[in-house]
Amino acid sequence: MGGSFASDNYAGALPEVIDAIAAANSGHAPAYGNDQWTARVEERFRHEFGADSDAYLVFNGTGANVVGLRALTNPWDAVICAETAHLNVDEGGAPERMGGIKLLTVATPDGKLTPELVMPKLVRFGDEHAVQPKVISITQSTELGTVYTPDEIRALGDLAHEQGLLLHVDGSRLTNAAAALNVPLRAITTDVGVDALSFGGTKIGLVLGEAVVLLRPGLGEGVEYLRKQSMQLASKMRFLAAQFDALLENERWRHAAEHANAMARRLAEGVAGAAGVRVTQSVDANAVFAVLPLEATKKLQERWRFYVWDEATGEVRWMCSWDTAADEVDAFAADVRQVASPA
Amino acid sequence: MGGSFASDNYAGALPEVIDAIAAANSGHAPAYGNDQWTARVEERFRHEFGADSDAYLVFNGTGANVVGLRALTNPWDAVICAETAHLNVDEGGAPERMGGIKLLTVATPDGKLTPELVMPKLVRFGDEHAVQPKVISITQSTELGTVYTPDEIRALGDLAHEQGLLLHVDGSRLTNAAAALNVPLRAITTDVGVDALSFGGTKIGLVLGEAVVLLRPGLGEGVEYLRKQSMQLASKMRFLAAQFDALLENERWRHAAEHANAMARRLAEGVAGAAGVRVTQSVDANAVFAVLPLEATKKLQERWRFYVWDEATGEVRWMCSWDTAADEVDAFAADVRQVASPA
Amino acid sequence: MGGSFASDNYAGALPEVIDAIAAANSGHAPAYGNDQWTARVEERFRHEFGADSDAYLVFNGTGANVVGLRALTNPWDAVICAETAHLNVDEGGAPERMGGIKLLTVATPDGKLTPELVMPKLVRFGDEHAVQPKVISITQSTELGTVYTPDEIRALGDLAHEQGLLLHVDGSRLTNAAAALNVPLRAITTDVGVDALSFGGTKIGLVLGEAVVLLRPGLGEGVEYLRKQSMQLASKMRFLAAQFDALLENERWRHAAEHANAMARRLAEGVAGAAGVRVTQSVDANAVFAVLPLEATKKLQERWRFYVWDEATGEVRWMCSWDTAADEVDAFAADVRQVASPA
Amino acid sequence: MGGSFASDNYAGALPEVIDAIAAANSGHAPAYGNDQWTARVEERFRHEFGADSDAYLVFNGTGANVVGLRALTNPWDAVICAETAHLNVDEGGAPERMGGIKLLTVATPDGKLTPELVMPKLVRFGDEHAVQPKVISITQSTELGTVYTPDEIRALGDLAHEQGLLLHVDGSRLTNAAAALNVPLRAITTDVGVDALSFGGTKIGLVLGEAVVLLRPGLGEGVEYLRKQSMQLASKMRFLAAQFDALLENERWRHAAEHANAMARRLAEGVAGAAGVRVTQSVDANAVFAVLPLEATKKLQERWRFYVWDEATGEVRWMCSWDTAADEVDAFAADVRQVASPA
Repeated sequence: MGGSFASDNYAGALPEVIDAIAAANSGHAPAYGNDQWTARVEERFRHEFGADSDAYLVFNGTGANVVGLRALTNPWDAVICAETAHLNVDEGGAPERMGGIKLLTVATPDGKLTPELVMPKLVRFGDEHAVQPKVISITQSTELGTVYTPDEIRALGDLAHEQGLLLHVDGSRLTNAAAALNVPLRAITTDVGVDALSFGGTKIGLVLGEAVVLLRPGLGEGVEYLRKQSMQLASKMRFLAAQFDALLENERWRHAAEHANAMARRLAEGVAGAAGVRVTQSVDANAVFAVLPLEATKKLQERWRFYVWDEATGEVRWMCSWDTAADEVDAFAADVRQVASPA
Repeated sequence: MGGSFASDNYAGALPEVIDAIAAANSGHAPAYGNDQWTARVEERFRHEFGADSDAYLVFNGTGANVVGLRALTNPWDAVICAETAHLNVDEGGAPERMGGIKLLTVATPDGKLTPELVMPKLVRFGDEHAVQPKVISITQSTELGTVYTPDEIRALGDLAHEQGLLLHVDGSRLTNAAAALNVPLRAITTDVGVDALSFGGTKIGLVLGEAVVLLRPGLGEGVEYLRKQSMQLASKMRFLAAQFDALLENERWRHAAEHANAMARRLAEGVAGAAGVRVTQSVDANAVFAVLPLEATKKLQERWRFYVWDEATGEVRWMCSWDTAADEVDAFAADVRQVASPA
Repeated sequence: MGGSFASDNYAGALPEVIDAIAAANSGHAPAYGNDQWTARVEERFRHEFGADSDAYLVFNGTGANVVGLRALTNPWDAVICAETAHLNVDEGGAPERMGGIKLLTVATPDGKLTPELVMPKLVRFGDEHAVQPKVISITQSTELGTVYTPDEIRALGDLAHEQGLLLHVDGSRLTNAAAALNVPLRAITTDVGVDALSFGGTKIGLVLGEAVVLLRPGLGEGVEYLRKQSMQLASKMRFLAAQFDALLENERWRHAAEHANAMARRLAEGVAGAAGVRVTQSVDANAVFAVLPLEATKKLQERWRFYVWDEATGEVRWMCSWDTAADEVDAFAADVRQVASPA
Repeated sequence: MGGSFASDNYAGALPEVIDAIAAANSGHAPAYGNDQWTARVEERFRHEFGADSDAYLVFNGTGANVVGLRALTNPWDAVICAETAHLNVDEGGAPERMGGIKLLTVATPDGKLTPELVMPKLVRFGDEHAVQPKVISITQSTELGTVYTPDEIRALGDLAHEQGLLLHVDGSRLTNAAAALNVPLRAITTDVGVDALSFGGTKIGLVLGEAVVLLRPGLGEGVEYLRKQSMQLASKMRFLAAQFDALLENERWRHAAEHANAMARRLAEGVAGAAGVRVTQSVDANAVFAVLPLEATKKLQERWRFYVWDEATGEVRWMCSWDTAADEVDAFAADVRQVASPA
């Protein structure tokens, strides 16, 4: 298969990431993170997210979310998230069954929580019959391809802290958001009140790897135990660390993310105004959401890979990745315009 | 750090495994296992374990054990294992907290279960007050470096099946056992009554990767859901599959395992008869267990990496891996002989 | 405290229930349900719900729901319920943390699910990333005091079965519904496609006691183990059984429920048309929901006990029970009319 | 059925307990423990266990243990208990599956832990691969009918506290122990270093009811939430409270427990020296353990109810309760002597 618009998980790894794995394959190294690669990448994470931050490498995004949220909650606490959050719809019930965490979900128009949307969930504190709201978890960029501005995040952070809650970011595409906003990673996390995050490596070009990052001292008691218990502790950790080392070196992720975002914009522009096509969400990062006729979708899927997001409305998702080619975007956009157009 | 005798997890990856990762990094591929590398490696697993077997790749050994055992048990079932089993002592409580599985542990002299040792646990069937024994889980090779013979496994399989139980193998070092016994993998699994196993890739030379392998049709309902829910589903699965492909090709693991085993034997022979040193377990695979004076251990650990297994008795574990060098073994053995010897 | 409109849990027990406890206190009886009282009450349950039904007594409503739903689901399954369901908002996260069950919640105007409301949740079957819808759970009578008709239940049962799901009823006030509809219990359960239910005893006049009732053979594998494991198995079971015996004898519950329902209607009528008071839900069973001015609520709560249901809207809940007195209702209604009326 | 020696759960309730239930059945009372009966019984518990203690009523012993131990542990902590502990063998896996708690079990000759037996489990602190020992849980009186002296408990408490652990007592028969030792309840709990306990009401004469009692301030964060979430919060709490009120009034339990204990001693004396009968445990409380010929057991069970404790050895358990009659004991002892005697 050549390129596709199915998912940024369909893309391979950045060449430098592969090189880093190969380079790390030299002799023996202590297991479970007591190696020099991990030490160096921990330093890189502190450089990105602040001196008080602590990063814990894990295998995948579901793992990062479950480990991070377990570390932030008591067994009677709940996590507030958007109804569309990956946490809620794409993790096979892991938060609930593996983490024991009840999610309090909020309907949103664009995948983004706001203080107004969250407020109605901030009730029944101290009532033993109800789970206690403890964490607000947002996704950046969101599952709908939109991006929170620093101010929007700060508003949620302020609300969380006023009410005794914590702010968590599911950042499986945090790099796409930082690139879209043209800001450092800490400008949309540490600096605006985020307490902890899942930092995504896989979608932006690792073979595999995510990180739980705790941004403030005193958070996340027992997180090392929880990572191990949650089946997310790699024995040959150096191979995860080496990948992140390559990704974080000189913000290598930024170029990759900028490219993916640019390709999504190019695609959105390419289909703009096309008869039969309606882009439904602001194309802030590397995804385009659009409604088109069911017949058009079927025809397109004969030649291109992408997912239908909502069977009921005919909404589709087109995802760009670090290696999406401009001419492929153009060819796809042309195809969409032709196929979607009413006869 | 150069070589060490701490763990086979300290070793790097086989060069062919690194090459396979690099080779798999070409263009887009469907995520979550719907790719050609995964299809090929599934075929390889069937070649090793039989046409009725099904392999599910996961990240690590704890993950493989939890996913596999969740797939074999009802919520009221229990798993019988050796007191020394990794499952019991080195998985941070994952079986219990993440899997909800109660372990019924059995003291053993050498890490190996026998029908006689298991029998006393096969009680209280139908009693709602007691968890119901459902799986016997053995480790091959064991945590004490010993190896079950095919007949020993068959005896446990027969017992399990007579009593309505299943036989599971934690095979994080299954390749070491197969190499030690000079038999194919299926001769110590499928052919002797094993129902399911965790197949270890990491310790024998992968960057990371294990597999849950179900050996009989009709077992493991919902295993795909359980893998995802247990946070063990890789998105860019091809990079796990490619590694296993390299490992299973022409039994590449066998040479690696034979070498590791040979180095352990060489080490055991090197210290045999040394004053102050007593090898405590049969050196069947790639581990040597020995008791030596505490002072000697301390002195040795200034120059060599290895773990004390039992603080109380002074027992230590020396582990060899696919890349342990013979001259390093010899140097270490000489050092042991000298240091352990009473003045 | 005299009477109140806070909850049917504030009421005591039916005198015959107390008598039954006292009468059961004679000599020794086998524990855990192997006694004559339990045998008799099981027979009574079969009489109510059909020869294929099986009842398992438990302590409380949360226990009944968790045991019942655990018995109906695999670890990757989900339960669809109303957003307002007790299961979702008043069980302290027990379904999720203790049962591991993800709830898929549906907003409703009146606490009642309909096929149309449920349909959008019946998606992603076979998709390993998503929990699999397995049970539709409705509450009868609902948390908003409304009652499903037999036809409404049948429609949900038909939908459930067509789609391979099961229909569960949280019947903590099932007796109020049956009394309201003037039908036997089985007319709103077994006869209209319900597969399993929680049968409420406490609110209608037991000291304590609920039952998990499985209505069809082949359902609920392992339910005895699950009851014990879920900490819901009473040792001196006869004392639970004796209470249910008294409750089910000649439908003793019906008179109690009819009275509670009648008192709610009387109250609704008593405040009908009152200035400043708006009854918000159909008063089908024993609850009245109304919006009144916040100041009025505060003044009323100085003299009467009842709960504010929704701080945001000022909606309150007035609950009647088997022992609510008519003159108390009249006094309360008069007070409401006076206090709520704008000056 | 008349009397039996099967279990103290076969006995009914103390007459005063039944009376207390009936007396509590007057008018409305706030639910969930906000009633006068609960307030009074909380005061009684403080009188028994000290001004710093807090009691939380629950339904049954498994519930008390799970709620209490959840309140004392983090998700990565473990509980040390005797292999024979009810927690380990008779709770259907509730500690593990519902509480997520790994038990570290210790073989004992008489059901009693000692510092020497516990020490080997106090290892691997700070090792993320291992659950962290956090609670020592003992049973008083033990499942084998033996009783810890205050000094024995204090020794375990001292060990626990030196090592940063807590001491928990599963006191489902704590009253039998206090009666046997002729000391107040606090002499074997609060005064000798116990941190928390499950206080048993059912076996000593309640209809049903146990209590989680936290003995020191600062322990058990979130215990109210955990009780609710663990499905152990009674709505009509006054009926649990009233029973405990009757039980604790003037140490009413003491007379009941002394009687049960005396009957066990009488039975042990009655069979002492009988041919074919060997009493295996010290008869400290209300249980007699004995080995007798299998044939004798079978014959006795035709006329008397009791349990075989160990199929392998032929050991049986004879349990006395608050209502066991002396002439019944004598008749049973005579029967045992006759039947067990070799022809």
